[in-house]
Amino acid sequence: MEVTIGISNRHVHLKEEEYKILFGDEELTVYKNINQPGQFASNQFVDLKNGDRIIEHVRVLGPFRKYNQIEISKTDARILKLDPPVRMSGEISNSAPITLIGPKGELELKEGCIIADRHIHMLPEQAKEFGLEGVEKVSVELKGEKGGILNNVYLRVAPNSYYEMHIDTDDANAHLVNPGDIGKILW
Amino acid sequence: MEVTIGISNRHVHLKEEEYKILFGDEELTVYKNINQPGQFASNQFVDLKNGDRIIEHVRVLGPFRKYNQIEISKTDARILKLDPPVRMSGEISNSAPITLIGPKGELELKEGCIIADRHIHMLPEQAKEFGLEGVEKVSVELKGEKGGILNNVYLRVAPNSYYEMHIDTDDANAHLVNPGDIGKILW
Repeated sequence: MEVTIGISNRHVHLKEEEYKILFGDEELTVYKNINQPGQFASNQFVDLKNGDRIIEHVRVLGPFRKYNQIEISKTDARILKLDPPVRMSGEISNSAPITLIGPKGELELKEGCIIADRHIHMLPEQAKEFGLEGVEKVSVELKGEKGGILNNVYLRVAPNSYYEMHIDTDDANAHLVNPGDIGKILW
Repeated sequence: MEVTIGISNRHVHLKEEEYKILFGDEELTVYKNINQPGQFASNQFVDLKNGDRIIEHVRVLGPFRKYNQIEISKTDARILKLDPPVRMSGEISNSAPITLIGPKGELELKEGCIIADRHIHMLPEQAKEFGLEGVEKVSVELKGEKGGILNNVYLRVAPNSYYEMHIDTDDANAHLVNPGDIGKILW
């Protein structure tokens, strides 16, 4: 089974309340919609900070969520001297602390910074069609000069999702994967 | 078969002539020996430059070589807006151009910048013992939360080598590998 690959650069999800601390009255506006229905890349950016380490200009994704979540790569984590756990979206309990700097304010979060797990979004009917009903995770083969196999790729089976694999920039750069490249699901 | 993993951060090999352009009379001095016999990390650093993009403080490795070679990761390449090929050490023909900045001078190289291929150093008697005589490349399995398999890992069989696998920081960060971790050779 083939799957198209999307590459997630470092990004931030925010609760509306915390967004207002960072941006004041500035509205969260759509830069472009992303493939997952209802989700979008916004025109708003924050800086990530830990001690004297900073990564500037990190995009906020919308719409607002019920939790603040900062998704970075291990390479980013080394720059920031953080040690975030590998987590699925929304599982931020006891994740890494991080400070966000917006144009109107600063926010010291006690947790929220994670390395996103590798995952594949899929509709329930697709999981059934592919023989993947009830399967928690798969491996995915990547072709090419620095190809290989990624293990522990979790299936996110939900209505209203767009069939696509999400990996971070480290996985992509290690294996020389570009957006839209194809992986092969193994299980 | 198990192999210990070493992680190569971006680094530079230089010919003596070009070293002198960059460092003048300053001697190339040993910071510490690395595992491959005769090779060392020096106390000397250069900046890498392409157009307005710079990566500062990149270590020179010694001793001098018969070619100038700059080994970076794909992540580094994106920062520098370069597109270096994946190559084995020494194969720099038609590789990417790059500018080096030392304390005493600057050097515009027409080629020399590569992404090093994944490889394993091994003695001829080890290749024989492991049943790998005449084998060009293998795959290596990595354990862990972001584990997987790296393909196209080339064998460097030579006398006077130290048995060890070398990967770059992208491969390491993608798979959460630390120096000294163990991979399993598959072939």
